[in-house]
Amino acid sequence: MNNFMDKDFLLDTEYAKKLFFDFAKDMPICDYHCHLSPKEIFENKQPDNISELWLSGDHYKWRAMRSAGIEEKYCTGNASPEEKFIKFAQALQYAIGNPLYHWAHLELQRYFGIDAPLNAKTAKEIFKRANEAIEKGDFRPQTLIEKSNVKYVCTTDDPIDSLEFHKKLAKEALPFKVLPSFRPDKALNIENDGFKEYIEALGSLTEININSASDVAEALCIRADYFNSCGCRVSDQAFEYVPFNTAQSADRAFKKALAGKELSVGEIEAYKTAVMLKLGKKYSELGWAMEIHIGAMRNNNAKMFESIGADTGFDSVSDCEIAKPLSRFLDALCKEDCLPKTILFNLNDKDNTVLATMLGNFQSAEAESKIQFGPAWWFLDTMDGMTAQMKALGNLGVLGKFVGMETDSRSFTSYARHEYFRRILCRLLGRWLEDGWYAYDEDIVKEIIQGICYSNAVKYFGFE
Amino acid sequence: MNNFMDKDFLLDTEYAKKLFFDFAKDMPICDYHCHLSPKEIFENKQPDNISELWLSGDHYKWRAMRSAGIEEKYCTGNASPEEKFIKFAQALQYAIGNPLYHWAHLELQRYFGIDAPLNAKTAKEIFKRANEAIEKGDFRPQTLIEKSNVKYVCTTDDPIDSLEFHKKLAKEALPFKVLPSFRPDKALNIENDGFKEYIEALGSLTEININSASDVAEALCIRADYFNSCGCRVSDQAFEYVPFNTAQSADRAFKKALAGKELSVGEIEAYKTAVMLKLGKKYSELGWAMEIHIGAMRNNNAKMFESIGADTGFDSVSDCEIAKPLSRFLDALCKEDCLPKTILFNLNDKDNTVLATMLGNFQSAEAESKIQFGPAWWFLDTMDGMTAQMKALGNLGVLGKFVGMETDSRSFTSYARHEYFRRILCRLLGRWLEDGWYAYDEDIVKEIIQGICYSNAVKYFGFE
Amino acid sequence: MNNFMDKDFLLDTEYAKKLFFDFAKDMPICDYHCHLSPKEIFENKQPDNISELWLSGDHYKWRAMRSAGIEEKYCTGNASPEEKFIKFAQALQYAIGNPLYHWAHLELQRYFGIDAPLNAKTAKEIFKRANEAIEKGDFRPQTLIEKSNVKYVCTTDDPIDSLEFHKKLAKEALPFKVLPSFRPDKALNIENDGFKEYIEALGSLTEININSASDVAEALCIRADYFNSCGCRVSDQAFEYVPFNTAQSADRAFKKALAGKELSVGEIEAYKTAVMLKLGKKYSELGWAMEIHIGAMRNNNAKMFESIGADTGFDSVSDCEIAKPLSRFLDALCKEDCLPKTILFNLNDKDNTVLATMLGNFQSAEAESKIQFGPAWWFLDTMDGMTAQMKALGNLGVLGKFVGMETDSRSFTSYARHEYFRRILCRLLGRWLEDGWYAYDEDIVKEIIQGICYSNAVKYFGFE
Repeated sequence: MNNFMDKDFLLDTEYAKKLFFDFAKDMPICDYHCHLSPKEIFENKQPDNISELWLSGDHYKWRAMRSAGIEEKYCTGNASPEEKFIKFAQALQYAIGNPLYHWAHLELQRYFGIDAPLNAKTAKEIFKRANEAIEKGDFRPQTLIEKSNVKYVCTTDDPIDSLEFHKKLAKEALPFKVLPSFRPDKALNIENDGFKEYIEALGSLTEININSASDVAEALCIRADYFNSCGCRVSDQAFEYVPFNTAQSADRAFKKALAGKELSVGEIEAYKTAVMLKLGKKYSELGWAMEIHIGAMRNNNAKMFESIGADTGFDSVSDCEIAKPLSRFLDALCKEDCLPKTILFNLNDKDNTVLATMLGNFQSAEAESKIQFGPAWWFLDTMDGMTAQMKALGNLGVLGKFVGMETDSRSFTSYARHEYFRRILCRLLGRWLEDGWYAYDEDIVKEIIQGICYSNAVKYFGFE
Repeated sequence: MNNFMDKDFLLDTEYAKKLFFDFAKDMPICDYHCHLSPKEIFENKQPDNISELWLSGDHYKWRAMRSAGIEEKYCTGNASPEEKFIKFAQALQYAIGNPLYHWAHLELQRYFGIDAPLNAKTAKEIFKRANEAIEKGDFRPQTLIEKSNVKYVCTTDDPIDSLEFHKKLAKEALPFKVLPSFRPDKALNIENDGFKEYIEALGSLTEININSASDVAEALCIRADYFNSCGCRVSDQAFEYVPFNTAQSADRAFKKALAGKELSVGEIEAYKTAVMLKLGKKYSELGWAMEIHIGAMRNNNAKMFESIGADTGFDSVSDCEIAKPLSRFLDALCKEDCLPKTILFNLNDKDNTVLATMLGNFQSAEAESKIQFGPAWWFLDTMDGMTAQMKALGNLGVLGKFVGMETDSRSFTSYARHEYFRRILCRLLGRWLEDGWYAYDEDIVKEIIQGICYSNAVKYFGFE
Repeated sequence: MNNFMDKDFLLDTEYAKKLFFDFAKDMPICDYHCHLSPKEIFENKQPDNISELWLSGDHYKWRAMRSAGIEEKYCTGNASPEEKFIKFAQALQYAIGNPLYHWAHLELQRYFGIDAPLNAKTAKEIFKRANEAIEKGDFRPQTLIEKSNVKYVCTTDDPIDSLEFHKKLAKEALPFKVLPSFRPDKALNIENDGFKEYIEALGSLTEININSASDVAEALCIRADYFNSCGCRVSDQAFEYVPFNTAQSADRAFKKALAGKELSVGEIEAYKTAVMLKLGKKYSELGWAMEIHIGAMRNNNAKMFESIGADTGFDSVSDCEIAKPLSRFLDALCKEDCLPKTILFNLNDKDNTVLATMLGNFQSAEAESKIQFGPAWWFLDTMDGMTAQMKALGNLGVLGKFVGMETDSRSFTSYARHEYFRRILCRLLGRWLEDGWYAYDEDIVKEIIQGICYSNAVKYFGFE
């Protein structure tokens, strides 16, 4: 029997412990995809209390609370910080098996020095103790990032963002780098409200007279150059499925959209395909990695969307067919020798095998595992999800060249998730070693573990 | 090494044993969805032999027998009870890994006091012993239900059913309640033979002149009120995928169907959508739970269907895309503030993540886990299926508020499946506790286990 | 802790060891589906070195190498045998978790007597030792097949193949039989380049004037009779999804294809459906088994396809909906009493439940498990893939009647994969026995294990 989340948490073999403590634990972090705010990092404000830190923007926690039957006022509403924290603790005690439970306790242990389990009985006391820790300690973003041993933070930024705070941060003598990532969703989502206004803003900023899909791409490429000059090395895009449709006219679709007309699915696809083919080529020229996040179905609850907006906990997982158009898209770039380094992420675990085998179609000697299978993400960022992703990559690719974990998070204490990932990694590989399924060689195993924890990523993205 | 299916069956940690024996074992059963016959419960007839009890209506067993190459006459044909039992035992011995094997032995142990393994060698002797037990004992439906510690039985009933036997049962002083459930499949399946006749019967019974989808819904609502007055608190519907199509005319579809014309997929969808939106609203008004069973593909073998009809073991699992229309359907009800408590069941395990994340889009404080992820069902009612369902819910929702198991069965000895479920539940959570993944607190863990076994369901359905 | 891949590799319980060593290990092999070349078997040439044996035609290895960032010249190019071997070893050391790692070491142990782990450090030495073993030993195809205890080899052959080498092999006094399999892909793939030429060749060989889908089927039936006379008992076909479309005209599709016109998806489906319905009937008449491999998406990389052709490592897994048309196709044959013995293979593990339940719709007393769930194959031929396939079959069918493993391989040392499969089988069932989930009875368990290893297959295919 093991103690509750003690130092050997998840490490169930001697090898797992060795891998974690000797190789993994002290590796720095390269957080190559997250949603941290560069402004907040720059402003570096100390939080008032743990509810502000934990509950002011975390849709994972809100969803768990709502699922436990807790009223909205304790989630996004105007209940007091203490009330919110107590309600969260109450939900958490029923969330057995949920990674939130582990994340919360890892964060309490690592950042607050609190080992007690959080539940309805202990909530009041832990709220007090955590706030004392905040009062006495330094919980500012930069400190949390540094204490977490993070070397690279890649935020998620709109192409028309000025990157003002990135520039300010670049001038400071920080022990970590904060780099922008290029996320052109608003320029791609031709079907969304606000598309026309966005295109106008993009045109105005780049001084391009945007009249076609091709003009959109040209304007985005100008911004990509700007992002590149600010240290950007990663682009990111999100799709329910990656479209590939060259049978219809992207420009016609674009003109219809600007004229406020409804587009067919084919037209939407044609537009996105045209822009993405140009962007892919640009990313390749810049040596960037192209991240593609597949499978989120967003804003499912219209009432809550109207009430509190996007990214508040009303997204879920789609189940489209993804294999064929994704293959055609990657092939179209590959044929022209302009397929960039690419990281494919799936949100539906039914797609693990599709993605883990898709990689192999387009590898080349340009990079070690040039096409990567992104780590288990969002709803799959669980022990089961991460284990399944690593097993799929292990079975079907070359796990030793995996670029590993990113947080995909909006929270400054969420770096505990890297520890969670590393424990799971060491658990999995430790078990294989323990069972005699892989020959233990200290140099090789150390290189694999440290590669997946950190070194593969910095090499892959060209940071070092 | 463990003995064959002894008292610690499936309980592989000290915590698992504690959870099962101290908390789970003696909880009553709330069987909120099954296919038991209220007539048979009322008539309360003693079976003649174990073949009548086991093999006269169980398509699970027939499928296994056919898969082992056994002729139809031993399944649904006119072979003798002993011949059938012996052939079943022969099939069972090859069905290693099949839950049938565990169910059969649990039933032999619990209801017949027979611990011996059933196989071709032992079949004759066990047939004799089981029949002696029946001869000497009381194997009538009411006794089996009472002995199984069942408090609520929700049967599955057609809206035009008179509920005669439910009314008769309600007048008896039974230690359990038998309640009807409202299953309007025949009114929804506009594409099936017999639809027109069914609508006529529905119209005649409700004295509604049915000329549109809306009239169908109105008539069904009248029957829902009647069902409600007879204690019904649950509705149930089955779809390959939940349709959502408001672009086409439901009434036009309805008129075509009554005129005997072939309908397009879109028309079928439009009709079902229109009726379901009205029914959902009605369920919400009545405070009922709406069960939706997704993913069965029925009557695949036309020859056997013509020969022995439906529900005889020729159904399998479909693989449609289900996420988007289901989301739209639930959202349409939610927007109008008339989304009832809802339980989503999937028959294809590829959909676990889709459903377990769909829940979170529509939770509210009206009920704890108002939108539920239904327990692993039918083809997924296996150790692997139940474990995967609970892991998905654990990872993605709030497992502690799960309403737990129902039998979905046609057999009076199938309550052993609740024990099977509880052992698997305690095995899973016991392992998490043993590994230090959740902090053991007697009150909390007891509440979670007893909640999932019984208390959550009776609270959720409003039975207590 | 276990030693690296020693004699107890994968056998983690006493029962697993007993099942493997007492029952499984010495059973012969019935390799009922592979891609070995009958010409190479007949010519029986000793390889020059291990790179020729391992790296001259194995796309699994090439994929792993490319994924590790290794240049194409070391895969399919003109680097020296030693360079290629060293580069492969380098990739292999990072391929932790990949079955290639286990296959390579099993082959080194069993065929070369080399127990050392293969990695970048040891590659040069192992290259030398392996080549010494080849020099001193007998590594000719017939010897490798005999040493592997193989009794039946079913190769994969085109209907217009003369079967010259099969005839020659049949005249030799070999301790194993080499039988052809009938794989009519080129006659079915109406959408592919070269279809017209293939049809001409087929027509000319069979002296049929081919003007319709029906003529194609007739010509194929003539060839099936010829194959049958040469000992063929198995047909094989591959589809992304099994089509079933009887709404469109197969003959019109055929005429368009011969005229060089583009076909719609519906037309392609109609043609394939028409030909397959006739072929299914023919297979049934001949008593053959019909293998259907579902889910490969081929030749994804156009550039590499043009450069080095098909089957070079650029295929991956598709994710079509497969359930409904497959059901309709099997039902159409079943209705006419001409559904042959059928083995369904899936390449996407999301389809495990669909296939494992599809079987049960069409079983009959003509054979024990007449409809089989094929073993985990190609990308799923991994520990996880094989375990999942056997669990799915265990949960949903009758595992004891499973026809078991085939290699699907192009390599003469790949029979080690049968040992791998058997160890995994014994691991899985050994665990069930150890945990008391199945009653141990020596006769029964022995029959099940030896059945799955060998006896079920030879009985099913009618070889003995």
